Amino acid sequence: MNVSLTLEEILPLLPGVAVNGGTSVTEIKGISSLDTARAEDLSFLGNSKYKSQVPLTLASVVLLPEGYVGEPKENQLFIRMKEPSRGLAEICRLLEKRIYPAPAPGIHETAYVHPDARIADGVFIGAFSFVGSQATIGPNSEIGSHCHLGDHVRIGESCRIHPGVKILSRCLIGSRVILNAGVVIGSEGYGFEQVGESHEKVPHLGVVVVEEDVEIGANSCIDRARFDETRIGAGTKIDNLVQIGHNVKIGKGCLIVAQVGISGSVEFEDHVVVGGQAGFAGHLKIGKGAKIAGQAGITKDVEPGAFLKGNPALPFQLAQRISVLQRKLPELFNRFAEESGNK
Amino acid sequence: MNVSLTLEEILPLLPGVAVNGGTSVTEIKGISSLDTARAEDLSFLGNSKYKSQVPLTLASVVLLPEGYVGEPKENQLFIRMKEPSRGLAEICRLLEKRIYPAPAPGIHETAYVHPDARIADGVFIGAFSFVGSQATIGPNSEIGSHCHLGDHVRIGESCRIHPGVKILSRCLIGSRVILNAGVVIGSEGYGFEQVGESHEKVPHLGVVVVEEDVEIGANSCIDRARFDETRIGAGTKIDNLVQIGHNVKIGKGCLIVAQVGISGSVEFEDHVVVGGQAGFAGHLKIGKGAKIAGQAGITKDVEPGAFLKGNPALPFQLAQRISVLQRKLPELFNRFAEESGNK
Amino acid sequence: MNVSLTLEEILPLLPGVAVNGGTSVTEIKGISSLDTARAEDLSFLGNSKYKSQVPLTLASVVLLPEGYVGEPKENQLFIRMKEPSRGLAEICRLLEKRIYPAPAPGIHETAYVHPDARIADGVFIGAFSFVGSQATIGPNSEIGSHCHLGDHVRIGESCRIHPGVKILSRCLIGSRVILNAGVVIGSEGYGFEQVGESHEKVPHLGVVVVEEDVEIGANSCIDRARFDETRIGAGTKIDNLVQIGHNVKIGKGCLIVAQVGISGSVEFEDHVVVGGQAGFAGHLKIGKGAKIAGQAGITKDVEPGAFLKGNPALPFQLAQRISVLQRKLPELFNRFAEESGNK
Repeated sequence: MNVSLTLEEILPLLPGVAVNGGTSVTEIKGISSLDTARAEDLSFLGNSKYKSQVPLTLASVVLLPEGYVGEPKENQLFIRMKEPSRGLAEICRLLEKRIYPAPAPGIHETAYVHPDARIADGVFIGAFSFVGSQATIGPNSEIGSHCHLGDHVRIGESCRIHPGVKILSRCLIGSRVILNAGVVIGSEGYGFEQVGESHEKVPHLGVVVVEEDVEIGANSCIDRARFDETRIGAGTKIDNLVQIGHNVKIGKGCLIVAQVGISGSVEFEDHVVVGGQAGFAGHLKIGKGAKIAGQAGITKDVEPGAFLKGNPALPFQLAQRISVLQRKLPELFNRFAEESGNK
Repeated sequence: MNVSLTLEEILPLLPGVAVNGGTSVTEIKGISSLDTARAEDLSFLGNSKYKSQVPLTLASVVLLPEGYVGEPKENQLFIRMKEPSRGLAEICRLLEKRIYPAPAPGIHETAYVHPDARIADGVFIGAFSFVGSQATIGPNSEIGSHCHLGDHVRIGESCRIHPGVKILSRCLIGSRVILNAGVVIGSEGYGFEQVGESHEKVPHLGVVVVEEDVEIGANSCIDRARFDETRIGAGTKIDNLVQIGHNVKIGKGCLIVAQVGISGSVEFEDHVVVGGQAGFAGHLKIGKGAKIAGQAGITKDVEPGAFLKGNPALPFQLAQRISVLQRKLPELFNRFAEESGNK
Repeated sequence: MNVSLTLEEILPLLPGVAVNGGTSVTEIKGISSLDTARAEDLSFLGNSKYKSQVPLTLASVVLLPEGYVGEPKENQLFIRMKEPSRGLAEICRLLEKRIYPAPAPGIHETAYVHPDARIADGVFIGAFSFVGSQATIGPNSEIGSHCHLGDHVRIGESCRIHPGVKILSRCLIGSRVILNAGVVIGSEGYGFEQVGESHEKVPHLGVVVVEEDVEIGANSCIDRARFDETRIGAGTKIDNLVQIGHNVKIGKGCLIVAQVGISGSVEFEDHVVVGGQAGFAGHLKIGKGAKIAGQAGITKDVEPGAFLKGNPALPFQLAQRISVLQRKLPELFNRFAEESGNK
C-alpha cells in the first residue's frame, strides 16, 4: 500500500497521546504489521502477543498501548495511547477517504430514477442503477453501479450500497448500512405446500427490514417473510455468501461469518456469534450471547451464553474431549480385543 | 403486513367451505399465525399441532380443517374447508397481485433487445436488461432489471426472472420457471486436464436445460455441461446459494435446500430431498425419493428411498444412534480404564 | 450437442497420430462418451477404466491412447495418439469458437467507459458495463454485460470476464484470467474492533491481486486486504460460490472446489487441492501440495503434502479408520456391557 501521510496529519487524529523518541521521517509511506514494516512505515501493537516484535520493527512510527515498557530506537517515534487499535482505525479512515474517495453527490447520467422516487441531498447513484417508484433514499447515501432498488424500497442516511446489490420491492434499509456487491435483499422465501406429488408455491408477501449500522457481505441473500418481515438487528455484521431464510429474526450486535445458513423462522437474540459455514434448522431460538463454532449443525434451541460445536452440536468442551477420544478409538478397539481374548 | 381485503373478496376464492359464527369485521387488515393475530386479522390452522391455539386466537376470521371440533368466539368467523393451507394460498395469491403487482407488459426504455430476438406478447423486460441475438421469450414472461439473456437463450411462458439473473448463451428455460435475483445459469464447468504442473481448461460446450415449474433461489449457480446438457427436472425447487456442477441431472419434483453443493455428473432420480449445506462428490447416482440430511457428505451412490445423515453418510437411525454413543465415549474410556486397572 | 465437423478439419489438429480403419462418415455430428455415442459421433478413451466400452461404442471416430490394443469395427475410424484427452481438448476448442464465438471487438453502444480509461486493441465491452476512471484493459480481453470495473482497476490481456462481474477499485487482474458471472473481487473485508458492546468497522485499504491464468467460478467472492493485498497465485482454479477472506494468499496452481471458505490471512503454498465445502479458520499456513477433503474443517497449520479429512481434520487414513470404527460403536458398547456384566 502506497500512502503519503505526514506526522502533522496524523497527530491531530490522536488526542491525548504520549510521544517518545523522534524520527527524521516526516512522511509516512505505508502501514504494516510490526514484522513486515520498513522505514517510513507506521506500525502498531494491537495485540500484546506480538509485544516481542516491537524492539525489532523497522517502522519509523509505532502506535503502542499506554503500558508498553521500552524505548524507541534511534530515529524512531513511539506514540503511546489508550487503544492503539482505535488510533490506527482513525488514521485508516483518513487514508480511506484519500484512496477510495466517496463519489461526488449526483446521479450518473446512465442511471434510471423513477420520477416519483424521493432522493435526499448528498446522495450518489451510480451507473446503470435503477430506482423504482415511491423508493426513498436518505441523505448522503451512496448507491453503486448496477443496483436495483425496487418500488417502495426505503434506504436510510449515509448508507454504502456497493455495485450490483438487488433490493426488492418494499424492503427497508436503516441508516449507515453497508451492503457489499451482489447482496440480494428480499428474494422469494423457500416455502411450498405439497399437493399430491408436486410442490405448490406459497406466496411470500412480507419484506426484509435491515436495521441501522448493519453490514452484509458480498453475494449474501436474505429472503422476504411469508407475511410480515425478516429482520436483521442493529449493528449486526454479516459476512459473504450467507443465507438467511424467510421470517428469520436476527438480534442486535450479532456476528455471522461467511457461508452460514439460517433456515426459515429462526430467531437469534442479541450478540450471538456464529463461525463460518455453520447451519441452523428452521424455527429455532438461539439465546443471547450464544457462540456457535464454524461448521456446527444446530438442530435444537440454544441456551443464552452457550458455546456449541459439531454436528450434532455439543457444548464446546465436551465436543473437544470427544474429538480427542475419537482419535483413540483404534487403540481402544485393539485393547478391548486383546483383553477379551485374554479371558 | 397491512392489507385490505373484504369477506366478499375472500369467500369466492374458497368454494365449498362451511361458514360458522359471524363477525362485524368486514375488512381484513392482516394475515397472521394464530398466536400473533389481532382482531381484524385472518388466521389459519395449517398444522394440527397448533390446534390448542385456536380457542385463544384473537383473529376475526379463522381458516380450519373440516374435522376441527370447536365453536367460534363471539364476533369471530370460522371457515372450515378440506385444506386450509390451500385456501390460505389462494387468498395470498390475490394479495400478492395487489402488493407486488406484475409490471405492465412492455420493454423498459433503458433495456437492450437484439433486433433478431423474438419477444412474445405480454412480456415485460426491465431496466438495463440485455437480450441477445436469436433469444426467445415466451408469452407473459417477466424479466427483471439488469438481466442478461445470452444469444440463443430460450425462455418459456409465464416465467418470472428476477433482477440480475445471468442466463448464458444457448441455455433453455421452460415455462413457469422462477429464477431469483442473481442466479447464474450456464457458467463454465470446473474441469481441467493436468498438463505437467499446470491445469489446462477443458472447454464446456454444452448447455443448461431448466424444465417447467422449476424455482431457483437467489445467487445459485448451475454450470453448463461439457458436451450435452446439465438438466433440472420439472417441478424441482432449489433454494439460495446452491451449486450445481456441469453435467448434473436432477430429476422431477426434487427439493434442494440452501447452500447444497452437487459436483459434476451427479444424477438425482425424482423426488429426492436434500437438506441445507449437504455436499455430493462427483458421478454419483441418488435413487428416487432418497432423503439427505443437512450438512451430510455423500461420497457413494444412494439407494432409492434411503435416508442418510452425516459425513461419511450413514442411515439416519444408525447415525443418530452413533451420535448418542459418541457422547458416552468419555464414560466408556473411564470405565474401560477402571476395569483394566482392576484386573 | 449438434455440431458439424469434417475429418478434414479434425486431423490437422492432431499431428503425429496413427489412423486405423475407415469410415464413410465424413461429417461428425456430435461428441459423446463411449457408451452414449451414436454413429456420426466422435468419442474418446480418456480414462483406461472405460477400456471395455471401446469395442461396444457406436461412435464413427474414436480417439485412443497409443497403447490401446484392438481393431475398429467396420465403418469405424480409430485415431491413436499420445494423449487422447488433449486431442479432444483441441477439437473442443475449435468447436467452442463456432458455438460460442467471441464477440467482435468493440464497445457496446450502451456501455459506459470513463474518458480517461485506457482500452487496448481487440477489447470487447458488453452492454451496460461500467469502466471507471484510470481503469486499464489489456489487448483482446472480453468484458461481458453488466460488469463493473472500478477506478484504477487493471485487467491484463486475453481475459474473459463474464456478465455481472464486479471488480472494485484498484484491484489487479493478470492476463488470461477467466472470471465467471457474478464474481465479486475486492469486497470489503470482514474485520471489526469491539468497542463496548458494538463492533466498529476496520477500514480495508488494500486490494486484490489475481495473477495470470487464474479462473474463478460464478458468484465467488474475494475480499480486499486490510493494508496490502489479497493474492491469488498464477494458474489457480477456483470453483463457484467460494469465499476468500481479506489478506489471504493463495499459491500457484491450487485447485479450490465449490463453496470452500477461507478465512482472513490464511496462506496456501503452491499446488494445494481443496474439496468442496471445506473451511479454513483464520491465519493458517497450508503447506505445498496439501490435499484437503471436501467438508473438512481446518483449524491448524497443515504440513506440505498432508492429506486431511474431517472436522477436526485428521490424516486421511486415520479419519477413514475412525469412521469405520464409529460404525462399530453400537457393537462395542454392547459387548462392553456384556463383559462387565459377566464379571
